[in-house]
Amino acid sequence: MSRPALWTAISDSLTSDIAAGRYRPGDKLPTEAELSARFGVNRHTVRRALQAMADRGLVHSRRGAGAFVAAKPTDYALGRRVRFNQNLRASGRVPGRQILMSETRLADPGEARALRLSPGDPVHVYQSLATADGEPVALGTGVFPAARLPNLPEALHAYATVTEALAACGVADYTRASTRVTAHLATATQATRLKLAAGAPLLRTTSVNIDPDGVPIEYGKTWFAGDRVTLTLES
Amino acid sequence: MSRPALWTAISDSLTSDIAAGRYRPGDKLPTEAELSARFGVNRHTVRRALQAMADRGLVHSRRGAGAFVAAKPTDYALGRRVRFNQNLRASGRVPGRQILMSETRLADPGEARALRLSPGDPVHVYQSLATADGEPVALGTGVFPAARLPNLPEALHAYATVTEALAACGVADYTRASTRVTAHLATATQATRLKLAAGAPLLRTTSVNIDPDGVPIEYGKTWFAGDRVTLTLES
Repeated sequence: MSRPALWTAISDSLTSDIAAGRYRPGDKLPTEAELSARFGVNRHTVRRALQAMADRGLVHSRRGAGAFVAAKPTDYALGRRVRFNQNLRASGRVPGRQILMSETRLADPGEARALRLSPGDPVHVYQSLATADGEPVALGTGVFPAARLPNLPEALHAYATVTEALAACGVADYTRASTRVTAHLATATQATRLKLAAGAPLLRTTSVNIDPDGVPIEYGKTWFAGDRVTLTLES
Repeated sequence: MSRPALWTAISDSLTSDIAAGRYRPGDKLPTEAELSARFGVNRHTVRRALQAMADRGLVHSRRGAGAFVAAKPTDYALGRRVRFNQNLRASGRVPGRQILMSETRLADPGEARALRLSPGDPVHVYQSLATADGEPVALGTGVFPAARLPNLPEALHAYATVTEALAACGVADYTRASTRVTAHLATATQATRLKLAAGAPLLRTTSVNIDPDGVPIEYGKTWFAGDRVTLTLES
C-alpha cells in the first residue's frame, strides 16, 4: 500500500484558498516553481496535487500557461421533468435566455420521426441562448409541431419560459421521454455565442418531450458549455 | 414558410449510399465541388445537406479535409442498472476490456466522501480500457472500499466483468445511485490509449454504485470517446 500522500495536503491547502476566495474563478494559480517553494516539495508533487484538483473540476491547466481556478459548474438535472429555469435556480443561478431565431418551416426527416409527423409537416423552430448569472451556458434549438401549436411563436416571445409558453398553448404539462448525450468540439459560431474558445468541449443533448398522453410536443437539441455545466442523473 | 428543401433530397441520397455500404465508416465523401456537379446544385445546398448529416452524427467534417463517414456510435444506457457488457451487447457490439492498472492505496478526500469512508481508509483502484468490437471506447477508473472487498483485486483479474468479480466478493447486486456527465478534451495519454487525436472530445461520467442496502461499493470515473459513444436516458 502506498504511503499517505504528501500531495493531498497541498491540494487541501489550495482548495481552502479557493474556498476562502483568495483565488477566484479565472485567477491564475502560482506557478509550479512557486508552489514547490511555498510547500517545500518537488514539482512532481505539486503537479500531482494540481492534477487531483483538475480531476475534481476545481482548476484547469493550460499547457505552458499554468493552472487557473475553474468556475464552479452549474449542475443541470436530467430526469423525468427537465425545466431550464427550475434547474438553474436549484443550482443557485439566475436563469436567463435570449431568442436567437424563430421560424416556421417544413420538418426534415429526423424531426418528423422524433415528433411522429410526416416529413414536410410544418414545425416551429426556436433557437435561444441560455444564460446562468448572465454568462452563456447553452445554445438550444427546439422544434415543435406547428399544427398542434399554431400560436406558439407569439407565446415564446410573450412568456419568459418555454414551459409557460406551452401552457398558454394548451400543453399544461410535459415530461422528458428520452435524452441522448454526446460530446462535440465547439464550432466557431457556437464558440462566439457561448463566449468560449473554438474547439472547446460541448455536451450535446438530443431530447424528446411528450405531453401527458405520450404525444411528442418538442424535439430539442442543446449544446452546453462543457466546462460550465455538469449534467446530473439521480436514480 | 420556407419552400421544400432541395438539400433534403441530397442528404437522403447520400444517407442511402452510406446505408448501402457504398461509403463505409472512415471513408471520405466526394468533395463539395464533386457533389455539386453530381446533384446539379450549388455548393451552399451541398453544405446544408452535409451539415444536416453531421447533425445526425452520420458524417463529420474536418476543415480543409472534407467530410468523412462517421462510425455509428455505440448507445450506452445510463439508468438504475448500468452494466458495461450488457450495454454493449444491447447495441450489437462485442464488449472487451483490458486491465491497465490495479493498486491498493489510501483514499483521497473525494473518494472517501463518495464511498462514505474516512480519508486514508484503503481503496482498491482499478483502471481499464473498454473496447467495442475491438475498438477502444472508454477509459475507466473504479475505486472500491478495500476493507469491505479484500479479495476484489484477484477477482477482477479472474473474472471477465466487474459485475462477476463483485458477485464473487459477496456483492450479489448493485445499482447506480448517481451519474454526473461532463465534457473534456482528451489529454495526450488518453488520446493514445483511445486511439483518438489529442484534443478530441470526451464524455466523462462520475458515478456511484450502491449495494441493495444503499452502501456505496464503487466510485467510478469513465472517459468515453465522444464520437464513438452516445449516452442514453429513457424516462
